[in-house]
Amino acid sequence: MSTRVLISDADASPDVLAIFNDIRETRGSEFINNFWRALAHDPIQLKATWGELKQIMGPGEIDPLTKEMIYIAVSVANGCPYCIHSHTAAAKAKGMSETQHSELISIIGMAGKTNHLVTAPQVPVDDVFKAK
Amino acid sequence: MSTRVLISDADASPDVLAIFNDIRETRGSEFINNFWRALAHDPIQLKATWGELKQIMGPGEIDPLTKEMIYIAVSVANGCPYCIHSHTAAAKAKGMSETQHSELISIIGMAGKTNHLVTAPQVPVDDVFKAK
Amino acid sequence: MSTRVLISDADASPDVLAIFNDIRETRGSEFINNFWRALAHDPIQLKATWGELKQIMGPGEIDPLTKEMIYIAVSVANGCPYCIHSHTAAAKAKGMSETQHSELISIIGMAGKTNHLVTAPQVPVDDVFKAK
Amino acid sequence: MSTRVLISDADASPDVLAIFNDIRETRGSEFINNFWRALAHDPIQLKATWGELKQIMGPGEIDPLTKEMIYIAVSVANGCPYCIHSHTAAAKAKGMSETQHSELISIIGMAGKTNHLVTAPQVPVDDVFKAK
Amino acid sequence: MSTRVLISDADASPDVLAIFNDIRETRGSEFINNFWRALAHDPIQLKATWGELKQIMGPGEIDPLTKEMIYIAVSVANGCPYCIHSHTAAAKAKGMSETQHSELISIIGMAGKTNHLVTAPQVPVDDVFKAK
Amino acid sequence: MSTRVLISDADASPDVLAIFNDIRETRGSEFINNFWRALAHDPIQLKATWGELKQIMGPGEIDPLTKEMIYIAVSVANGCPYCIHSHTAAAKAKGMSETQHSELISIIGMAGKTNHLVTAPQVPVDDVFKAK
Repeated sequence: MSTRVLISDADASPDVLAIFNDIRETRGSEFINNFWRALAHDPIQLKATWGELKQIMGPGEIDPLTKEMIYIAVSVANGCPYCIHSHTAAAKAKGMSETQHSELISIIGMAGKTNHLVTAPQVPVDDVFKAK
Repeated sequence: MSTRVLISDADASPDVLAIFNDIRETRGSEFINNFWRALAHDPIQLKATWGELKQIMGPGEIDPLTKEMIYIAVSVANGCPYCIHSHTAAAKAKGMSETQHSELISIIGMAGKTNHLVTAPQVPVDDVFKAK
Repeated sequence: MSTRVLISDADASPDVLAIFNDIRETRGSEFINNFWRALAHDPIQLKATWGELKQIMGPGEIDPLTKEMIYIAVSVANGCPYCIHSHTAAAKAKGMSETQHSELISIIGMAGKTNHLVTAPQVPVDDVFKAK
Repeated sequence: MSTRVLISDADASPDVLAIFNDIRETRGSEFINNFWRALAHDPIQLKATWGELKQIMGPGEIDPLTKEMIYIAVSVANGCPYCIHSHTAAAKAKGMSETQHSELISIIGMAGKTNHLVTAPQVPVDDVFKAK
Repeated sequence: MSTRVLISDADASPDVLAIFNDIRETRGSEFINNFWRALAHDPIQLKATWGELKQIMGPGEIDPLTKEMIYIAVSVANGCPYCIHSHTAAAKAKGMSETQHSELISIIGMAGKTNHLVTAPQVPVDDVFKAK
Repeated sequence: MSTRVLISDADASPDVLAIFNDIRETRGSEFINNFWRALAHDPIQLKATWGELKQIMGPGEIDPLTKEMIYIAVSVANGCPYCIHSHTAAAKAKGMSETQHSELISIIGMAGKTNHLVTAPQVPVDDVFKAK
């Protein structure tokens, strides 16, 4: 159920294998999920995306679990089943509790509702909300 | 630029005014933003949505600022300009720093990118990501 | 705020003018809204879309007002401000009451909410819902 | 293919079971579909959503079948397979004919087309469409 | 996993069969894909859509392979798995190379990213971008 | 109408100014559009996104004009007015003819239509479309 063959380790070029191994080391796990195996058709994109992900999802002023929950929120609104599955697994691995998961889903549902309630009557933006 | 007239205090029914006043008390501000004035055509929906928002965005296992950032993330992916403006204002009011705002935008951009990179080749979900 | 110039009657080719005039006759109004004036850069598309709209939005087993409300629902979910404005005007012209407008918005909001509540945990489709 | 375990009757808390039973009574059927079993991780959200659905999708100035068709329209535009399946089943149960189903799909397709035809050239909203 | 039964040749009306046969002749293949078999519940829509597709995707100032890639881009952003599969197959049949496929996916990913980076802070459109 | 102040040259840090100047040199124009001025709050993201854009939208097996048209297609489906405006301007600068613009819009409209016609009845993917 894919339009591209997944690249196994056996079929991977040395460039691709180097990224796969960096993923393994960084995560402390042998497992490479399908996203990277599909992206491996394009070694430049694979390297760039992995580097970007490490940088953006790494330490910062927003904590790692919050970052995963924001990622899930975008992926739900965009309707990306793979991304929802993989980042929910990541959030659980980073300690998301059952209650936090429920709260996350409720916020996403609430935002989905009010996004529609605002868009339907085309509510104009209040002036006070605009950056000076 | 709206398909419904905004309900002013002068035009509000007692039911609507009661909600407007609860919004004012809860927020400690006289200001009622346009969303509520558009929703006021339907007092039952107005009351239900305000109650739901207070409950879901209030205290819980996810902190209030994180809740606003998740809300923004959904609103960006759904393309709701009003919601982005109002919840960004709310996040700033709850202490979102300039750096946190930048990080939030980067995560949203990253998720937007990988959502598309996953959907384009229709990457199949790894079995390990599925809940038992 | 457009990427194409709107075609005025003075600038319209005879082919385009013929469609504009059919729109006028069909609607019993001199007014041609901007959608048709933007589409007029492509007379074949203009003619095809107008013909399709007349056929699909015309008499059938679903009544004309319901058709407009379904059109609005799609346009809200797709985030198309122009379409929401034009089809809300059409629905009002076809008799949509204030209460029906409120109910329409509530259904759209409810659907927006449950779409997100379903997508977030990736709820699997029940077998009984599938067509045999 | 889900990120949360579905709650069976055996695993349901008394609060959850009470809602399940209200769903059963209201619908006159023993069957509880997966949406409610996934939502049951959050009894407050389960109760609120079920109550909201009963109120909004119940009797009003828009008839119940039309309400289901509007729900389907939003769910198609948002790309929610589960919601499309469940509300199409509901619409059929409420009497949607084969021809009405075809007409519904045609309106959704037409709206999808013109939403894109409008958005691509960024057609500006006509002044006459705006609420005074 | 569908809400409508697929129409086999045996169940097809003469009108539907005529379109199926035109699809076969045009493509030089006996195979009729599921999209047409689902659409065949509505012979008028089937005929209109097939005619429109032949006209729009046929020879023009944009070459056929580019047309397929544009089609894929829309389908990815809209999250339509079926459409991504069928038009990726069509693009491959029209000569899309592995490298072009990778470049297509990268452009789609880049656009997905910047769409979100622009929408999050609500960047205002520069005056120079507007058509006179 | 933005949630972040646009960074002028006068307010730009040396890092940001260096990127602005690279944009100027690469494009042979003094003009810096608002996207970069909004992104400049985050110099690392500014640099990364500009570098990525230059690499992906530059020479390859897909020609530069086609790349812009694919970019527009994604931006229309995602409903990003800014992106549609800026990339339509870029496509025109790279030689997109009026007829090509019309064809592009028609393909996007057609895809929008069939995306909805496929999603509404949840057409299952044909086995032949799947990559081996």
